[in-house]
Amino acid sequence: MLRTFSVRRVTAEGAERVTDRIAEEEPLAILVKHWQKDAAVTASLAVTMRTPGHDQELAVGFLLAEGVIRGRKDLVDVRALGNEPSNEVLVELVRGVDFEAWRLARNGFVSSSCGVCGKRSREAVQQDMPHVEADAFRIGADVIQALPATLRSHQPGFAETGGLHAAALFTAAGELEALFEDIGRHNALDKLTGWALLNGRVPLRERIVFMSSRGSFELVQKAAMAGAPVLATVGGPSSLAIETARALQMTLLGFVREQRFNVYSGDWRINSK
Amino acid sequence: MLRTFSVRRVTAEGAERVTDRIAEEEPLAILVKHWQKDAAVTASLAVTMRTPGHDQELAVGFLLAEGVIRGRKDLVDVRALGNEPSNEVLVELVRGVDFEAWRLARNGFVSSSCGVCGKRSREAVQQDMPHVEADAFRIGADVIQALPATLRSHQPGFAETGGLHAAALFTAAGELEALFEDIGRHNALDKLTGWALLNGRVPLRERIVFMSSRGSFELVQKAAMAGAPVLATVGGPSSLAIETARALQMTLLGFVREQRFNVYSGDWRINSK
Repeated sequence: MLRTFSVRRVTAEGAERVTDRIAEEEPLAILVKHWQKDAAVTASLAVTMRTPGHDQELAVGFLLAEGVIRGRKDLVDVRALGNEPSNEVLVELVRGVDFEAWRLARNGFVSSSCGVCGKRSREAVQQDMPHVEADAFRIGADVIQALPATLRSHQPGFAETGGLHAAALFTAAGELEALFEDIGRHNALDKLTGWALLNGRVPLRERIVFMSSRGSFELVQKAAMAGAPVLATVGGPSSLAIETARALQMTLLGFVREQRFNVYSGDWRINSK
Repeated sequence: MLRTFSVRRVTAEGAERVTDRIAEEEPLAILVKHWQKDAAVTASLAVTMRTPGHDQELAVGFLLAEGVIRGRKDLVDVRALGNEPSNEVLVELVRGVDFEAWRLARNGFVSSSCGVCGKRSREAVQQDMPHVEADAFRIGADVIQALPATLRSHQPGFAETGGLHAAALFTAAGELEALFEDIGRHNALDKLTGWALLNGRVPLRERIVFMSSRGSFELVQKAAMAGAPVLATVGGPSSLAIETARALQMTLLGFVREQRFNVYSGDWRINSK
């Protein structure tokens, strides 16, 4: 996840040679083995630039976000190809998951961390995402305000490099259940939702997804496809992230810091003074 | 570029309703009109989530980074399609630019802000990029140390929202020549290099590209394809960004702050004490 490089550090006092710990970035090819009529076919789906580690989870989370799979039942197997360190992961779908139809519906577009491939309008990018149920799940403002400190204390890669994003899963009581780091925020969330799917935890009922990054449309999409009722981010959201969260009745929080946060959507879930 | 939303702000003292300025995010479809034998064909190339504005520059910069075009001479026209606000831009290539061959060589993959589509190995993602010439271009450390203050004072969107990245072009004397903001760092750089290409400034000789973000492989790729000898970023670089910059003999600087910065590649360009 981290590598060491020799670099020159220049300050007001002069220059010195130091070693620097750097977040690793490598391409990952996601391949999909599926059935076309009576033949098993392997297709290249996407290449993403990611921090190696939890590649299977990343691939599964990506397929979940893109609507290719809905649950563990759609998967036969997920495995790395070739020798370690591998930069290819193969997802084998069960017969009956119509990958070709999905691909055609996307107009031929498939991309890394895209989520909007082949969809040009705002209406199109927002379609096919599940609305969050108006259940009894509520969260105290104090729980939200405590998230940043917990996240920071569990981000080993960020602490060392400042170059890794984190996606974390919390209970309504503020208990950390899982955390994944990656150089890309979309990858970090794919790893989290893929892990959840592989462990039978999708949909992510009564859970908070907390990200170290800003909140983009694609993060709302990925959280929604995993059934998360709440997405909270350290940074601010985009206009389309807010509009999409509102359309889906998902709670969207931004600028989550020690003592404060903003509620951009789904206000009713938050118990505050 | 910015929109206003009504939100609830929760602090230790309680909650209040406030208005918040938010960075705009919308999908942009990039279409390419090209020649196949004797027929003009329009193909969908990619969809990217971007902050509206300078869409033509973004599309041109994207095509430059992906190796579809090399200069202004490859373009007939670039224009928005449909009514304002448009989420589609059409790039018309001159006859002779073999778009189909390019697409086939990429294995069918095309994506937004990807740069590695259809390329699985590190060797493959690094190919086809120009090496920087070992020219006489040198920069004083004091110029680098002054970049952050200049950048900040010219980022109206970031100042208001905290949600926009900036890509800026500087001379060796530290003079700001151009700056583009976008919710995505890759888009911001595409807008900058696209602007440069449309204004006859590619390759970007004796110029510094300065980004408000971290330094990823794809930013190195985009800067290299525009011929920039120096890429400097406020955040840290990835391992592959460093390795690629070193392979290309590009100068790569990271953690550029008021009084300090790190030199990850191309040390010889920097005059320091």
